[in-house]
Amino acid sequence: MPREGDAGLIGRITLLTDFGTADGYVAAMRGVIATRAPAIIVDDASHDIAAGDIAAAASALSAYWRTYPPGTVHLAVVDPGVGTTRRPIVVTTAGRHGVGPDNGVLSPMLEAGGSAREIRASGLVREPRSATFHGRDIFAPTAAYLAAGGLPAKVGPAVTDSVRLPVEAPERTPDGIVGSVVHIDRFGNLVTNVPVAWIEGDAKVTVDGSDAGPLRGTYGDVAPGAVVAVVGSGGCIEIAVRDGRAADIPGMSRGSAVRVSYRAISGPLR
Amino acid sequence: MPREGDAGLIGRITLLTDFGTADGYVAAMRGVIATRAPAIIVDDASHDIAAGDIAAAASALSAYWRTYPPGTVHLAVVDPGVGTTRRPIVVTTAGRHGVGPDNGVLSPMLEAGGSAREIRASGLVREPRSATFHGRDIFAPTAAYLAAGGLPAKVGPAVTDSVRLPVEAPERTPDGIVGSVVHIDRFGNLVTNVPVAWIEGDAKVTVDGSDAGPLRGTYGDVAPGAVVAVVGSGGCIEIAVRDGRAADIPGMSRGSAVRVSYRAISGPLR
Amino acid sequence: MPREGDAGLIGRITLLTDFGTADGYVAAMRGVIATRAPAIIVDDASHDIAAGDIAAAASALSAYWRTYPPGTVHLAVVDPGVGTTRRPIVVTTAGRHGVGPDNGVLSPMLEAGGSAREIRASGLVREPRSATFHGRDIFAPTAAYLAAGGLPAKVGPAVTDSVRLPVEAPERTPDGIVGSVVHIDRFGNLVTNVPVAWIEGDAKVTVDGSDAGPLRGTYGDVAPGAVVAVVGSGGCIEIAVRDGRAADIPGMSRGSAVRVSYRAISGPLR
Repeated sequence: MPREGDAGLIGRITLLTDFGTADGYVAAMRGVIATRAPAIIVDDASHDIAAGDIAAAASALSAYWRTYPPGTVHLAVVDPGVGTTRRPIVVTTAGRHGVGPDNGVLSPMLEAGGSAREIRASGLVREPRSATFHGRDIFAPTAAYLAAGGLPAKVGPAVTDSVRLPVEAPERTPDGIVGSVVHIDRFGNLVTNVPVAWIEGDAKVTVDGSDAGPLRGTYGDVAPGAVVAVVGSGGCIEIAVRDGRAADIPGMSRGSAVRVSYRAISGPLR
Repeated sequence: MPREGDAGLIGRITLLTDFGTADGYVAAMRGVIATRAPAIIVDDASHDIAAGDIAAAASALSAYWRTYPPGTVHLAVVDPGVGTTRRPIVVTTAGRHGVGPDNGVLSPMLEAGGSAREIRASGLVREPRSATFHGRDIFAPTAAYLAAGGLPAKVGPAVTDSVRLPVEAPERTPDGIVGSVVHIDRFGNLVTNVPVAWIEGDAKVTVDGSDAGPLRGTYGDVAPGAVVAVVGSGGCIEIAVRDGRAADIPGMSRGSAVRVSYRAISGPLR
Repeated sequence: MPREGDAGLIGRITLLTDFGTADGYVAAMRGVIATRAPAIIVDDASHDIAAGDIAAAASALSAYWRTYPPGTVHLAVVDPGVGTTRRPIVVTTAGRHGVGPDNGVLSPMLEAGGSAREIRASGLVREPRSATFHGRDIFAPTAAYLAAGGLPAKVGPAVTDSVRLPVEAPERTPDGIVGSVVHIDRFGNLVTNVPVAWIEGDAKVTVDGSDAGPLRGTYGDVAPGAVVAVVGSGGCIEIAVRDGRAADIPGMSRGSAVRVSYRAISGPLR
């Protein structure tokens, strides 16, 4: 039960890993949390992140960390460097806590102004500590401590140089915006880093030079099979194919250049 | 905490989607529910429905909606038409509520006599509302409202023409029953629409003309590798292969004709 | 709410199956538990065990059953013999209960000294009972009963000949230990049955005759791409490839012989 700090009335932890579930590793973490903080609610965010894909985990975290109420602890363990000198950290921002390795997986909470601390308090480590499973032996106990109302200041010393993933930032140009495809989702939609709020006036979108038309209201505004640019759920432009998969189109993939032009491109060059 | 209506003492929501988990979309919905109705229990039914497969989602829903107690809210978001004019609805029957798009995914609850309402109450929409993620911005808030004891009548006006999937109904014939394979499960078992309660006397089952023998008690009543017809968990005939996959047999697939004959078929035609 | 027995303040059930989630079978079990014991917390351990793979399920169970607090009920339904004469059982050890078919899936709890009982009490069966879905109709109601504080003695008579998987035991040899690879996890790591606590002095590890070097502290102690032997999270030797998959190396697979030698092997034979 929450005792102190900024936790809400009901403690809550979300779990994000690249563990899959079939080996029992996730359940081992859940068991540790159940033992240390039995009244805490634990939600599975995902365990299907590709092994070691820190950027994909950060992208998933960015989709949900803020929809949870203040006091929530977001555990994120995609940790190819487990057992090395990479630090275990807690990141606190907007009343939520992130817990995981200092390898960039918590970037969305750091970019939102999060302050970090290294996990050092001895009471937070499950003994004997495994060198290969910090999710169970360090991160789960720390998450349980914070979700029960523990204070980040007691976890360990402040860290000012925590690792962030390189930001693929969009740029304004004289006649529009240039950005890129930063994520491909399960539906084959291309999530870009171009904020819709940046767009001024009528816009035309191209991906890797291919026309994606103007920004539309929704998928249904084009014919089945056609490419469409819409406002994605995170507030940035998304490129989709109605009733299809944009990611199956040659040239439309992670990293593809996305260009927003305020004047129509025309002429023989296309 | 439940306040009114027919909810039980403990509010509960189940989640069924085709989102997968790796993009963080499911967790975004869970976060909205946790924010709006923190004491509600949320169960994952499945997020592995094939993208856009409304019939598969309805089949899954039919397996569990009634095993939950009255008051449960079953959210089902397989929604290829998100953002178009298809209506968001609530279906209420036997004390349970279904929440999702009006595209047939809630058919099992409509077929059970459910009454539908269109979700229109402005307080149920999360702002700013995305055109592409009604799961987070409309369906999750509505499910939270109902699970906390909110009344369907306050959600919006009654709908009398809600969409149902075409029913593949079995038919009685002079010498038996004719039905079809309506679902193939993870084990390769063929789920049919032939209710065992319809069978009168000794029956012989054929699928796409191939002999599946008489109706047996369980898989173990035949030799390993043999085809067997049993009473499925939903009360209809299922076709299985002991220690194998019936769906791997040529001609045994979704849509295959299933025939129950009360007299043995014999002669050269077989 | 717990009433009697050794359950903790908060009743808790974990679910382990080979059902997948897309057919709605897992949710059907959850619904039965929600109906019979609404205040119980239910955790998904895994539903991604390969169909019928009892050994893989037992391996997963061994990773987590003891991290949960006493009073927890671990349901494990990988049940290719459902509907045959195999018995449904409860295994109790260290204050935790296992519930599942008597086919070896509960071996880790039996090996830990668990005592077994056959599930026979009529009130524990959901009627009408399906011959093909004991998870929903027998195991889930029994788990709900125990998690709510029910007593194993009331479930049914003691069983003294319950089925255990064959133990692949390591053996001490004059110059070391001989064991085997018993599991391959999602990361392609080879989990062996050689307890690190058995090792006396400097050790050299070989798998199927290939050198895996000395026992190291963690993956980071070797160069990327190199094979490394480490202390696994269960206390036995694990063979990994840094930033790679040991299971992709020819000869390194489930069942491979693992040898620990206290003296370096040298000479032309290698």
